Amino acid sequence: MSQQGITPRATDYSQWYLDVIAAGELVDKSPVRGCMVIKPHGYGIWESVQQDLDARFKATGHVNAYFPMFIPQSFLSKEAEHVEGFAKECALVTHHRLRSSADGGVEPDPAAKLEEPLVVRPTSETIIWHMYGKWIKSHRDLPLLINQWANVVRWEMRTRPFLRTAEFLWQEGHTAHATKDEAVDEATRMLGVYSDFAHETLAIPVIPGVKSATERFAGADETYTIEAMMQNGWALQAGTSHFLAQNFAKAFDVTFQSAEGSLEHVWATSWGVSTRLVGAVIMAHSDDTGLVLPPKVAPIQVVLVPIWRKDEDKVRVLDFAKDVQAKLGPNFRVHLDAREKMKPGAKYFEWERKGVPLRFEIGPRDVDNNAVFCARRTGGPKFGIPVDGDFLSTVETELSTMQQGLLDAALERRKANTHRVDSYDAMKQKMDEAPGFFLVPWHDDAEKEREIKDDCKATIRCFPIEGQSEFEGKTCFYSGRPATHMAIFARAY
Amino acid sequence: MSQQGITPRATDYSQWYLDVIAAGELVDKSPVRGCMVIKPHGYGIWESVQQDLDARFKATGHVNAYFPMFIPQSFLSKEAEHVEGFAKECALVTHHRLRSSADGGVEPDPAAKLEEPLVVRPTSETIIWHMYGKWIKSHRDLPLLINQWANVVRWEMRTRPFLRTAEFLWQEGHTAHATKDEAVDEATRMLGVYSDFAHETLAIPVIPGVKSATERFAGADETYTIEAMMQNGWALQAGTSHFLAQNFAKAFDVTFQSAEGSLEHVWATSWGVSTRLVGAVIMAHSDDTGLVLPPKVAPIQVVLVPIWRKDEDKVRVLDFAKDVQAKLGPNFRVHLDAREKMKPGAKYFEWERKGVPLRFEIGPRDVDNNAVFCARRTGGPKFGIPVDGDFLSTVETELSTMQQGLLDAALERRKANTHRVDSYDAMKQKMDEAPGFFLVPWHDDAEKEREIKDDCKATIRCFPIEGQSEFEGKTCFYSGRPATHMAIFARAY
Repeated sequence: MSQQGITPRATDYSQWYLDVIAAGELVDKSPVRGCMVIKPHGYGIWESVQQDLDARFKATGHVNAYFPMFIPQSFLSKEAEHVEGFAKECALVTHHRLRSSADGGVEPDPAAKLEEPLVVRPTSETIIWHMYGKWIKSHRDLPLLINQWANVVRWEMRTRPFLRTAEFLWQEGHTAHATKDEAVDEATRMLGVYSDFAHETLAIPVIPGVKSATERFAGADETYTIEAMMQNGWALQAGTSHFLAQNFAKAFDVTFQSAEGSLEHVWATSWGVSTRLVGAVIMAHSDDTGLVLPPKVAPIQVVLVPIWRKDEDKVRVLDFAKDVQAKLGPNFRVHLDAREKMKPGAKYFEWERKGVPLRFEIGPRDVDNNAVFCARRTGGPKFGIPVDGDFLSTVETELSTMQQGLLDAALERRKANTHRVDSYDAMKQKMDEAPGFFLVPWHDDAEKEREIKDDCKATIRCFPIEGQSEFEGKTCFYSGRPATHMAIFARAY
Repeated sequence: MSQQGITPRATDYSQWYLDVIAAGELVDKSPVRGCMVIKPHGYGIWESVQQDLDARFKATGHVNAYFPMFIPQSFLSKEAEHVEGFAKECALVTHHRLRSSADGGVEPDPAAKLEEPLVVRPTSETIIWHMYGKWIKSHRDLPLLINQWANVVRWEMRTRPFLRTAEFLWQEGHTAHATKDEAVDEATRMLGVYSDFAHETLAIPVIPGVKSATERFAGADETYTIEAMMQNGWALQAGTSHFLAQNFAKAFDVTFQSAEGSLEHVWATSWGVSTRLVGAVIMAHSDDTGLVLPPKVAPIQVVLVPIWRKDEDKVRVLDFAKDVQAKLGPNFRVHLDAREKMKPGAKYFEWERKGVPLRFEIGPRDVDNNAVFCARRTGGPKFGIPVDGDFLSTVETELSTMQQGLLDAALERRKANTHRVDSYDAMKQKMDEAPGFFLVPWHDDAEKEREIKDDCKATIRCFPIEGQSEFEGKTCFYSGRPATHMAIFARAY
C-alpha cells in the first residue's frame, strides 16, 4: 500500500486486497512463515461468524467437543486416499524438550526425541474416528453430531492472508450415522446451513453444488460446496460438506449393532468453514476506499464521532455522545471515538477504511437538535436521525437496509458475470476479457478437466444443484460427447 | 470406576475425581500421551466459562485477537527467566512434510527439515511482544488491551484430566501500558475480574493474593493468584495475573515515545485461566453420586423426563413436555430426554451423574395438573411446579437458589478447614489429619519455603491481599524471625 491510499481494484485486484487488509488493520505478518497474526478488527469479524454459525449448528442438533491437535503419525497412513491428500505438507512434532545450546541459545534435546512423530492436525477425521470407535457400539449411540472449533495447519507454499495460510482457524463437524441416507441428508443439510448463513449473514450469494471427482476431499465419496463470486469474477470456495460413506469407519474399524442385531460399519460426514470466510467478506464487498462490512459481521456497527471547537462545547457534546452510546449499547456494537488531538476528518478516514457501516457525527448543533448526523459507509448524502422514541428502530432499519443492499449488489454482479457459452473457445476468450462463472454442459472426464486447467487456468467449481437436469440432450462444450452434468467453470482462489 | 458406581470421596478422593469425570462423560483418554479428548458434556462447561468471561473482558475494555501457535525457537532464549521456566518441556516442530516409508507407512521427510525449529506455544508472551514491538510507537498506541482464546502445550510428565494435561485450552490476556502504575492496576483489576467470576459464576470462593518469589511466573515481577479450596482441603490455583514490569519490553526492545517526547520501555501484564477451571468446578461441588454443577455453567440446566405406561398417554405426555421445553427454551438450557425403551429410573441416574441441576418428571397426572414434578440435584423432597404465569420466574428462582447454596456450602467448608496455628509442628500434624488452608505469620525466605515443601508437601499458596497487615509485630511460625507477611500454606494440585 502506498502512503497515500489503496490501489484501485481496476489497477491491481490482488494488491487492492492486500491494501484493504492493511488499511483496515485486519492482519499483520508474523515471524513464522505463512502464519498470520489476526489483529483485533479482523478477529472481531471471525467472532461474529463464529457466534452466528454456532447458533445454527446447535439449532440443528449439534454439540461442540475438543480433540487433541496432535495426531499420531501412523493414523495418517490408515485411509489411503486421505494420506494422499493430506499427509504431504504437515507440521511434524519430533521432540518434547529444549536444552541450552553452546551458543547461549536453545535447541531440541536429542534425548527427548519422540518414539513416534506427531502430526499437527491438518483436519481431524483420523483422530475423531479413532475415538468414535470407542464410543459407538449400538444403533442407540447414533447419530453422533459433533462439531469442533479449532486451529489447523497445512504447510502451504504460497500464502495469502485469510485465503491460504499455514495455520488457520475453522470449525469441523464430524457426524456418524446408522444409514447411508441419513449421512447424505446430514451432508446436504449442513450445506444448506452454510448457504443460508452466507446469504443472510455474510451478504454473499453462493451457489450450492457438487464437486467433480478431481476437486473432491481426500477420503470422501461426495463433496458438496458453496461457491461465491468475488468482484473480479473469480470464484471462492466458501465452505464444503463431505459424504464420507463408510471410508473412515472401515479404516478405523468402527461398527455398530443395528436394531436387527447385525454388525455394520458406520456412515460419516464432515463439514467445515474457516477464517477464509473473512477473506471472502473482504473481497465480496469492499471498495477502493477500503473495507466494507455487512452490518451483521461488522465488529463495530456504529461509530460515534463527537465534534467540538470550543472548550465549553466539549463536555455537553461528549455527554450527549455517551448517552447515545448507552441507548444503542445493548442492541448494537457501538464505539465512541473520543480521541483528542485528532481531527474529525482523520477519524472519518480511519473508520471508513475499517468498514464501519454507520458513522454518527455529533456536534454542538446536533446536541441542540437532540439528533445525530449519519453517514453510511456505502455512500449517499448524510442525514440527521432524531434521538427519539424511534431511534433504535431507525438504526436497525438503516443497518438491515445496508445488509440487504450489499447482498443485492453482489447478486447483481454475479448475474452480470455469469455466462453461458457455446464452445470452449468462447469461454477461453471471455475468461481473459471478463472473468466470471461459465455455466456449460459437460461430459464428466478428469483428464479433460486437467487439460482445461492447464490451458486457461479455469476449474470446475461445481455441478450446481439447481438446474442440474438442464444438461439432458445437450452435448459437452469441450468434447462434444453427450453431456452428463451442468458445470460451472471459473478461475478460483 | 467400578461397574456399580463411584468411589466415595472418603475412600479415595483422587479416584473419586476420575470416577465422577467418567460417569459424567466429561473427557476420554486420547491416543496422544497426556492429551485429553473433551467430550460434549465437558466442553459445554468450558463454553459457559468462555461466554461469561469473554463478556467480562469486553466490559473492561479488552478485545480479542489471534497470534500464531508456532514460536521461533530463538524467541524463547530472549527473556532469561522465561526460558528457564518454559523452554524445558515443549513440543517442537522440526519438519514440514511426511513421505511414504518403506514399510508402507509414513515418516518425516528429511528434505523438509526446518532451518529453525518451531515451538508450539506454552504461552504467548514472546511472540506477542515481538508483534507489540511493531505496533507500539507512541503513547497514543497505549494502553493495548488484547486477549486471546487458544490451545497451548506443556509437555507434562504426570497428567490428570483438566488439572494438568499436555495440551489445554485457555485464555491469555496481554496488555501494554505507558506507566508502571497503570500496569499494576491492570494486573490487579483482572485478578478482581477472575475473583468475581469464580464467586458469581463458578460458585467457588477464592482467596486473592500475591505469590511468593518461588511460585512466581517466569518473567514476572509479581504474580497475583486466586486460590480455591477443594473438598479434600487441598488448594487449587484457579487463575493468575502477572505484573511483568518492563521485562518483555526490554527483551524484545519495545519502546514508545512519551507525551513529553522521551523514549521509554513499555510496561506489561499477562493473565490467564484455563480448562483447569472445569476441574475446579468438579472438585468443588460434586458428591458421591456424581457431578454437581452450578446452574450458571451447567450445559443442561433443566432436563425433562416424560413418563408414560399406556400408549394412549404417550402422545399427550410428549406434547406437554415439548410445550414445557418451548416455554423454557429461550431463557434456559433445556434438554428433553425422549429416549424410548429406557426406564425413567435409568434416565434419572444418568442425569444425576451428569450434574443437571433440575429434573422435571412429566407423567399423565402432571399433564392433567398442568404441572411438572421437580427434583433438585442437590437433594431434598421432590415438589410440583405449576406451568402457569409464574413458571419461568419459579424456575429462575430455583436455579439461583441452588447457585447461591453451592457457594454458601463451599464457603462453609473453607471456613471449617482454614486453620490458624502457632507453630510449624502444629501445622505439620494437622496437615495429615485435616488438610486445609493454614494462615500463618511468615518471614519471607525461599530456602525455608523449600524445606517445608520437602518436609510436609505444603507450599505457600499466596500472601492473601485481605488482612495482610496482620503480620505486623508477629514472628514467623517457622523461623521465629520477625514476620514479613501473612501466608497461606496448603497442599496443592
